Amino acid sequence: MADTIDKPVRKKKKHAAEPLYGLKPAVVHAVVEAARAGHAKQVRRLIHPLHFSDIADLLERLPSDIRVRVIDYSRRTLPPEVLPELDDAVRDEVLDILEPRQVAAAVSDLSTDDAVEILEDLDHATRQEILTEVEPEDRRLIEDSLSYPDDSAGRLMQRESVAVAQNWTVGEVIDHMRESAELPDDFYDIFVVDGRSRALVGSLPLNTLLRTGRPVRIAAIMDRDITIIPATMDQEDVAILFRDRDLVSAPVVDGDNRLVGMITVDDVVDVIDEEAEEDLLKLSGVSETDFYQDMLQTTRRRFSWLGINLVTAIAASVVIAIFARTIEQVVALAVLMPIVASMGGIAGTQTLTVAVRAIAMRDFGPGKASRFILKELSVGLANGVLFAAIMGVIAGLWFADPGLGAVIAVAMVLNLLVAGLSGAMVPFLLDRRGIDPAIASPVILTTVTDVIGFLTFLGLATVFLL
Amino acid sequence: MADTIDKPVRKKKKHAAEPLYGLKPAVVHAVVEAARAGHAKQVRRLIHPLHFSDIADLLERLPSDIRVRVIDYSRRTLPPEVLPELDDAVRDEVLDILEPRQVAAAVSDLSTDDAVEILEDLDHATRQEILTEVEPEDRRLIEDSLSYPDDSAGRLMQRESVAVAQNWTVGEVIDHMRESAELPDDFYDIFVVDGRSRALVGSLPLNTLLRTGRPVRIAAIMDRDITIIPATMDQEDVAILFRDRDLVSAPVVDGDNRLVGMITVDDVVDVIDEEAEEDLLKLSGVSETDFYQDMLQTTRRRFSWLGINLVTAIAASVVIAIFARTIEQVVALAVLMPIVASMGGIAGTQTLTVAVRAIAMRDFGPGKASRFILKELSVGLANGVLFAAIMGVIAGLWFADPGLGAVIAVAMVLNLLVAGLSGAMVPFLLDRRGIDPAIASPVILTTVTDVIGFLTFLGLATVFLL
Repeated sequence: MADTIDKPVRKKKKHAAEPLYGLKPAVVHAVVEAARAGHAKQVRRLIHPLHFSDIADLLERLPSDIRVRVIDYSRRTLPPEVLPELDDAVRDEVLDILEPRQVAAAVSDLSTDDAVEILEDLDHATRQEILTEVEPEDRRLIEDSLSYPDDSAGRLMQRESVAVAQNWTVGEVIDHMRESAELPDDFYDIFVVDGRSRALVGSLPLNTLLRTGRPVRIAAIMDRDITIIPATMDQEDVAILFRDRDLVSAPVVDGDNRLVGMITVDDVVDVIDEEAEEDLLKLSGVSETDFYQDMLQTTRRRFSWLGINLVTAIAASVVIAIFARTIEQVVALAVLMPIVASMGGIAGTQTLTVAVRAIAMRDFGPGKASRFILKELSVGLANGVLFAAIMGVIAGLWFADPGLGAVIAVAMVLNLLVAGLSGAMVPFLLDRRGIDPAIASPVILTTVTDVIGFLTFLGLATVFLL
Repeated sequence: MADTIDKPVRKKKKHAAEPLYGLKPAVVHAVVEAARAGHAKQVRRLIHPLHFSDIADLLERLPSDIRVRVIDYSRRTLPPEVLPELDDAVRDEVLDILEPRQVAAAVSDLSTDDAVEILEDLDHATRQEILTEVEPEDRRLIEDSLSYPDDSAGRLMQRESVAVAQNWTVGEVIDHMRESAELPDDFYDIFVVDGRSRALVGSLPLNTLLRTGRPVRIAAIMDRDITIIPATMDQEDVAILFRDRDLVSAPVVDGDNRLVGMITVDDVVDVIDEEAEEDLLKLSGVSETDFYQDMLQTTRRRFSWLGINLVTAIAASVVIAIFARTIEQVVALAVLMPIVASMGGIAGTQTLTVAVRAIAMRDFGPGKASRFILKELSVGLANGVLFAAIMGVIAGLWFADPGLGAVIAVAMVLNLLVAGLSGAMVPFLLDRRGIDPAIASPVILTTVTDVIGFLTFLGLATVFLL
């Protein structure tokens, strides 16, 4: 290991070296071979020492038929923590193989947030079948969480948390924790509630508790200025709060400000990851990552995006068709016209991506939108003029026709202006109307830049070159 | 507040309602007005009650001239925690306005990871100027951290952590913490080192410490199976470890396995956010978010991407030029050809995005790459056949020419196959050669789908329609 540490790992070679942590390819090969040969015991022996996140990785990477065997062999020894780590598509497969009683045992073992994550995507019948096998007390807590809307703080929280009254002393709290059998597995803050109303009044990081002498009252050291999460808050807003305020855990309250659970940063990390990934995927017309989906599902999901794009591409073609006669006379126009449209599309996408990301990050303050649009218009104009000059000269020389060069130059400036304007405005307008800008913006943008690109270039050519 | 909590907030109206936390637009307006009127005291009074993350937000959202005034008015009262939260472009502005001594005071107040974040982007002279004003002990720690490579765990870590010897008892640790004045502001785990070699041997979550009786030895309750981060590890790998293993803090060690610092999850959250954002932005040809950059910088940064795209667009045009004669005879080809190229581009981008994301998430296990490529080829074929049928009929009817319909159908299948193949393979091959797939893939892909799209469609038309 000393070797790995002494030499700074060069970015270039990063993927070549054996990683320090994570699933080793040799293990995957060994599991595949053992499963193929039907050696159930050997499969279990290989899986046993792995970290639960690596087991999840392993299951995701196995070919479907091998995965079925591996799960079958290890159904009694699989750590429950593996289940919430799995990609949705793979988890569905795993849950299908396990018996409801086994899933129920796993669900009971996990904290409620992980249990909810497993159960929320199942159909109603399967979910009920599993829940009937869960202890009534746990079941009530899980069903409670499931009653909150999708993607809300209530779904994200775990019900287990530690609450103490403000008139306790540090010593009493420590004694309570040493005696209590019902503490959550991991926690970083203790929440303080009013002894009478049970309303949340403060929080206390464990390290403050540890630094303070036993006789001190909790009320004297607790943090009163706390970030309280209503159970109905959107998980995206929760994630932004955790990120901006560097939180590690936060209390979740109901409508009467009573503590109903806590959200810990590990769940938020997953949300942040998901949200950024969603924007990325939506902009490319992939609704969610289909890396683990089979070919038929993937084809179906991508079909609709391609279908929408076909309509917009045909719209652009109709514009070209209007100028069919012009093209017949100056065939160079057909050669050059994709350049104008393509440059507009690229410039617009650059602006669009920055806008979509800024909206997701809630970066648009008052007055910022109009300044952003103005700036993007200027950038479009500046790059438009630069590329107009470059492309004007190239086209003029290529076809020995200065007029053609002038026409493509003007069309380029216009289309890059339009690209800047629509790239900046479309996401913003969609967001205002409650439409997800990441999904709808790219289609609208390419339609605009294609149509305007062909229209200005071919239109100008018809007027000035014929 | 009860009102907000009882009614589930509908996704649609999310941006309309006043948010529970975060910067209120009214505050921004009030600050702008007070600054414009030159009321320094009023500006400070408005800023004082805000959370440091909201102050950072405020500074980012202000117009540049107002920002200069606000910083000038509040230079003595600005909480140091604001600085690491700022966007790079805005932070540069702020650091320019503050005197080196003021920056040094802020840097000394912060933990070393935040100090490093502020200092690492500055030019050498400014950095030295600030560091000479910092206490020698703090300066040594900061310079030590800065000696690690960019984007390494060493840069991300804070030097402050709590280490105890394994032969201590729980009671001794608690007493030590009550007496010690040198504890970090926030910590969640205590690290256990060998009394003699100072090598790291275990870790202990604070909640375990709190649950355990005073006489118990640390060695008996500590976690021996810990995730140790070498200081040279890439921050992306650190982020994946934290995410996969649900870590809250982890010890960082040097080449001799001695504890040199700790990484806490709040820093990792920022990395995860950055990395996902980077992929998104790179795929669209924006090197980093330029939301807060001025128009000239933005124009320059985007120019190069547009320039590269111009070259690929011209390459596609050259292909069209080869078939100029064919187009002169069948002008419908000029009308339809962008459709074939565009569908290929969209289909390829879908595949590409999934591949780039899977590579970033280290999802490619052994054998998975070839299965992925095979699957994407099948998806390309399936959607190719479907859209060939649709577009073949449309083109045949539109131009009353079944031959033309047949030609566009065949070209569509071929281009969607090529799109699937190159969308899946290009990122993978680039990654193997140590080139960032998010940056280089889109250019290569669109060149391929444009060239192949025009080539197959116009080529087939030349052979079969003339």
